[in-house]
Amino acid sequence: MVPYFILIYSVIIISLMVIVYLVKYTFAQDKGTTEMQEISTYIKEGAMAFIKRQYKTIFMLSILALFLIILSNYFGNTSKDSSTAISISFHTGIAFITGAFCSALSGYIGMYMAVNSNIRAAAGAKKGLNNALQIALKGGAVTGLAVTALSLLGVATLFLLYGGGSGNDTLIKESPSLLVGFGFGASFVALFAQLGGGIYTKAADVGADLVGKVEAGIPEDDPRNPAVIADLVGDNVGDCAGRGADLFESTAAENVGAMVLGVALYPIFGWKGILFPLVARALGIVASIVGIFTVKVKDNNDDPMKALKSGFVVTSIINLIILYFVVNNMLTGALPNGGSVNSIYLYGCAVAGILLSYVFVIITDYYTSITRKPVKEIANASETGAGTNIITGLSVGMESTALPVVCISICIFAAYKLSELALPNIANAGLYGTAIATMGMLSTCTYILAMDTFGPITDNAGGITEMSGAPEEIRNVTDRLDACGNTTKALTKGYAVGSAALATFLLFSAYLDEVKRILGKPLDSWFSVDIGKPEVFIGGFIGAMIVFLFSSTAISAVGRAAKYVILEVRQQFKEIPGIMEGTAKPDYARCVDIVTKGALKEMILPGIIVICAPVVVGMLLGKESAAGFLMITTITGVIMALFLNNGGGAWDNAKKLIELGEHGGKNSEAHKASVVGDTVGDPFKDTAGPSLHVLIKLVSTLTLVFVALFS
Amino acid sequence: MVPYFILIYSVIIISLMVIVYLVKYTFAQDKGTTEMQEISTYIKEGAMAFIKRQYKTIFMLSILALFLIILSNYFGNTSKDSSTAISISFHTGIAFITGAFCSALSGYIGMYMAVNSNIRAAAGAKKGLNNALQIALKGGAVTGLAVTALSLLGVATLFLLYGGGSGNDTLIKESPSLLVGFGFGASFVALFAQLGGGIYTKAADVGADLVGKVEAGIPEDDPRNPAVIADLVGDNVGDCAGRGADLFESTAAENVGAMVLGVALYPIFGWKGILFPLVARALGIVASIVGIFTVKVKDNNDDPMKALKSGFVVTSIINLIILYFVVNNMLTGALPNGGSVNSIYLYGCAVAGILLSYVFVIITDYYTSITRKPVKEIANASETGAGTNIITGLSVGMESTALPVVCISICIFAAYKLSELALPNIANAGLYGTAIATMGMLSTCTYILAMDTFGPITDNAGGITEMSGAPEEIRNVTDRLDACGNTTKALTKGYAVGSAALATFLLFSAYLDEVKRILGKPLDSWFSVDIGKPEVFIGGFIGAMIVFLFSSTAISAVGRAAKYVILEVRQQFKEIPGIMEGTAKPDYARCVDIVTKGALKEMILPGIIVICAPVVVGMLLGKESAAGFLMITTITGVIMALFLNNGGGAWDNAKKLIELGEHGGKNSEAHKASVVGDTVGDPFKDTAGPSLHVLIKLVSTLTLVFVALFS
Repeated sequence: MVPYFILIYSVIIISLMVIVYLVKYTFAQDKGTTEMQEISTYIKEGAMAFIKRQYKTIFMLSILALFLIILSNYFGNTSKDSSTAISISFHTGIAFITGAFCSALSGYIGMYMAVNSNIRAAAGAKKGLNNALQIALKGGAVTGLAVTALSLLGVATLFLLYGGGSGNDTLIKESPSLLVGFGFGASFVALFAQLGGGIYTKAADVGADLVGKVEAGIPEDDPRNPAVIADLVGDNVGDCAGRGADLFESTAAENVGAMVLGVALYPIFGWKGILFPLVARALGIVASIVGIFTVKVKDNNDDPMKALKSGFVVTSIINLIILYFVVNNMLTGALPNGGSVNSIYLYGCAVAGILLSYVFVIITDYYTSITRKPVKEIANASETGAGTNIITGLSVGMESTALPVVCISICIFAAYKLSELALPNIANAGLYGTAIATMGMLSTCTYILAMDTFGPITDNAGGITEMSGAPEEIRNVTDRLDACGNTTKALTKGYAVGSAALATFLLFSAYLDEVKRILGKPLDSWFSVDIGKPEVFIGGFIGAMIVFLFSSTAISAVGRAAKYVILEVRQQFKEIPGIMEGTAKPDYARCVDIVTKGALKEMILPGIIVICAPVVVGMLLGKESAAGFLMITTITGVIMALFLNNGGGAWDNAKKLIELGEHGGKNSEAHKASVVGDTVGDPFKDTAGPSLHVLIKLVSTLTLVFVALFS
Repeated sequence: MVPYFILIYSVIIISLMVIVYLVKYTFAQDKGTTEMQEISTYIKEGAMAFIKRQYKTIFMLSILALFLIILSNYFGNTSKDSSTAISISFHTGIAFITGAFCSALSGYIGMYMAVNSNIRAAAGAKKGLNNALQIALKGGAVTGLAVTALSLLGVATLFLLYGGGSGNDTLIKESPSLLVGFGFGASFVALFAQLGGGIYTKAADVGADLVGKVEAGIPEDDPRNPAVIADLVGDNVGDCAGRGADLFESTAAENVGAMVLGVALYPIFGWKGILFPLVARALGIVASIVGIFTVKVKDNNDDPMKALKSGFVVTSIINLIILYFVVNNMLTGALPNGGSVNSIYLYGCAVAGILLSYVFVIITDYYTSITRKPVKEIANASETGAGTNIITGLSVGMESTALPVVCISICIFAAYKLSELALPNIANAGLYGTAIATMGMLSTCTYILAMDTFGPITDNAGGITEMSGAPEEIRNVTDRLDACGNTTKALTKGYAVGSAALATFLLFSAYLDEVKRILGKPLDSWFSVDIGKPEVFIGGFIGAMIVFLFSSTAISAVGRAAKYVILEVRQQFKEIPGIMEGTAKPDYARCVDIVTKGALKEMILPGIIVICAPVVVGMLLGKESAAGFLMITTITGVIMALFLNNGGGAWDNAKKLIELGEHGGKNSEAHKASVVGDTVGDPFKDTAGPSLHVLIKLVSTLTLVFVALFS
């Protein structure tokens, strides 16, 4: 076991070194003109003020959750003696705190790097596209590495501390299920980070637009608009801090889930089956580092998106090679009824996962790209007004769920069957295949995360050059990066949904293993979740409804928080004379403050709904009903997230397409209609959609942690 | 058994007599001015032309389906000898044809009465509100009675013909499952009737509005608009023919489903358990007739909605009393392990069903009523533009799914548990409770259907008075009835969703019984549908996705069909000079023809998706996977339908609220924003939403008929 841990910790140390190098590289870059620096300082201060207050709220909620975890694990475990109950409560609680802390730290790092890279990317645009691209991507890479390395460090270390390294069979087999608290802590923080950040970013955006563009008639990113800084801050807190926490949670929860499933195959793989997810994750980080350093554009006319995509392909290919050796090394052994494990089939599962991530990127690109039919149709429909624009966008969003669902289904089925071929006549063998596929899909996670954080950095760089009145040629560079960033943001959302879907099937199986453990049944038995039973049907029915209710509250929260912004800006225009003439400065900080308060207030209700619903269902209707809830919430949540993300992305780009001159160009009637579509799409793709990814995984980890409470 | 059949056929004869009376009453009414008659003739001709061509298309599709049914039932039944296989194929095929024919006939009657009552209601408005209300409601009542009586006649007669009246135990027990073809035939026709009608009505509406109001600047229902007759025809083919077929299907499919479940309890109730649904339905018709005749308003200032609601309450109370005696008479018997059936608990199930229908009406009313918070919020949000109007409407629609889901869950759970109390220690006793609850909910079906058809009649009456230039006071009467009709349409949609949800849980159980029969397992065994198995999960995943894909195609079909209308109207304005001056008449019929062709073409794709998906899933992944598909399609479909119906209704009324003078009134910016919302809501509530009700039940009957094909 020791060499594997040396490998894991070496990768963590390498990641740390690369992070230090990247930070140094980024901070050594030119910080641009004084105007740029001034704006950047406002953004930085606003972002930090938000995250400080948000973390305070999340901290209090976490303490409450911790309390409940300890109580539920103590009183729920009636079948065990009191010292075991105390030990489980204690271990799960510690894991929860660690997970929550690491998740928060990931979000913080993501935001810190983004607010420091944006100005440097803006300033670097002077030296050309490649220079700006490098700064933005490397700034994003810090987040990607920090998030995945932290997740690996947390899970590996807790596993060791909880007895995974003891050599004692019983301890090794018990420790993964003590780690579920880590996943829950991570999802808990991620939910509020994504929800609060998502509400903040869109409230500021919608509010700034409505009061600036519509009421005062000033352009976007105009420094006279008091809400403009809040808008730029929003990209950082929503996309960086939010998505950072989201993907931290994915990697954490899925690692833990896969390890729990590994326990079931202990008789065959031994501890290697449990450790496999961590090793695969570690080597995936290495592959991503290589991928990141290959990204380059030749000159200013080169397509930055092509460069980023080719980096993704490089990362995927390296992972394909690495995973072959890891699977062949770790997932072997003799079968109890003779013969040995057919590892090549297990490798097939990993390949299926990697392919799925690639297919997801292609499908998302199709539905949200400016050059493809769906976006063109929406732009076309804008000619007959906002009504037809909305109808077409909704229709495109709903249609876009079909192919991803089919692909996920094929991947799960293939992984399941391949794994059964690899492990003939072994109970529950198929499930482990889905775990391997998930590891395959997540092997490119670091690279994806770097690409994702690249988005808000370039978005902010665009805003800074615009506001500081930088010359045309620099703005051209940042505009092109910004458009590219919009695409990467859409792609990573697709990726996040896909991995969430795979992950939940995995976490669901882990949940069933936990149930068996609690009921004292052997792990190779089968616990059935029969949807023909009314309590399971009802659990599922309520679960699907929660997805709609949650989306409703998240979307309406944006509207309510945006109202605060509108009122505040109107107030400032009245109180501070000379803003519109440019002789007086608006009070940016007050506006930031108002959105912060509004967003944090509004994130509570949807958060509480999601956390309480599965617990109430489990307590009233039992474990099997909670499992039904879990599965149907996942199914509906994945589809709804696809609908919201892709619909929102398509509307956004339909507007862009018209702004590029199609259908009458800017300020035409078609453009006005497309702005309505974009306004609707914003809370879809940046608030409700991404929060749903977290919701899906949160429900899984939550039921895992509270299963002892269920009747 | 004979007295019960005498009762059933007596009710059918009474219904027929009442129908004759109502038709005579309606046709004896004044047909109004020549202008009115001219317009009415256009509508009549357009509606008949549509239904003729639509039925031709449906006829061809039905022949294809019949062919597949016979083949699948013949070749699928490998376990039986060839003469049994031929007999099953033959019986199911005959039942399918009968169901399809009766469903089509129901739709035809509904439309025929509507196009003949509308002008008489318009003319009757001269004599006051009560007179117009009576004509519209009695015209609607013909449809309600015809639909439910036909369904009863069809099921009862086939049951008798298939051996239900033979006194032979085996034949009695086998005949209900031969009737499933009847349900499938009904749903098959209903799907296309609702889909084609829904696309037609909204394509005409949206097209007429866009080209009339927006482009030409003429008001709604202006005779100069060539699409205006198509728009009025649309209400008849969508709401009357479509919903008539929809509710015919509900009553048929649910009767058959309940009878199939009754077979499982044959040892206790005997044939009475199988016949109970038919008797309950028959007496429900009587209760509804009484309810319909009590509706009355005192004077022109009285609220017609209040009168209609009180009729509903009367019908419900009579049903409550009737069902008490029916349950106590039919659902009794000795339990195999001693003691006797505790019928009072079974009566509790029926009460739960009736309560559910009442609760659904209240909830739908809350979310779509002009006087309540949700609609007010949407109207309020219209002040900041179309974007916020849409966001708020979507949010309201999503939120409106929560309470109905909770209420359905409680009803199912209560019925299940009560039935278990009534039949202690009997396998699958709980399921029969859900059947009784469904019968309770559907006992008011005739009344609801009368109220529903009332909607398009008053809508058309309003259009006719408007177009014929009738005096202000008459228009006031028809306007008030029209507003009331909008509410009844929304309420019946809520009712239809609720009953579809209950029904599917019932049909799902019937499906499992069929599976057991095919597998040769005893009926009191349990066939589990384990969502933890990947094929069941995948079946469910694809099922949920189909709901989104279907909604997408239905919504976008409206957009495409509307384009034909726009092009045609533009063409007519160009070709026929003098239309705008009123010196020349537009060619209404050509416009009707274009929408008809467009709608029929566009209904094929969504129809095919829905019919093929479950069959493909069942054939590839097996019976259990198909069951997963069925359940999750239901769950998602019910919630999506609630979202679409209530969201659409709320948008519609938010526009109405503004038109009544709030937020700046007609032609204000807020009004323009609310028009956008209404345009989006139209295909939601009149095309996709109602088609989803049918989809849900179609998937159930479809899997029942094709189960033999599944691997």
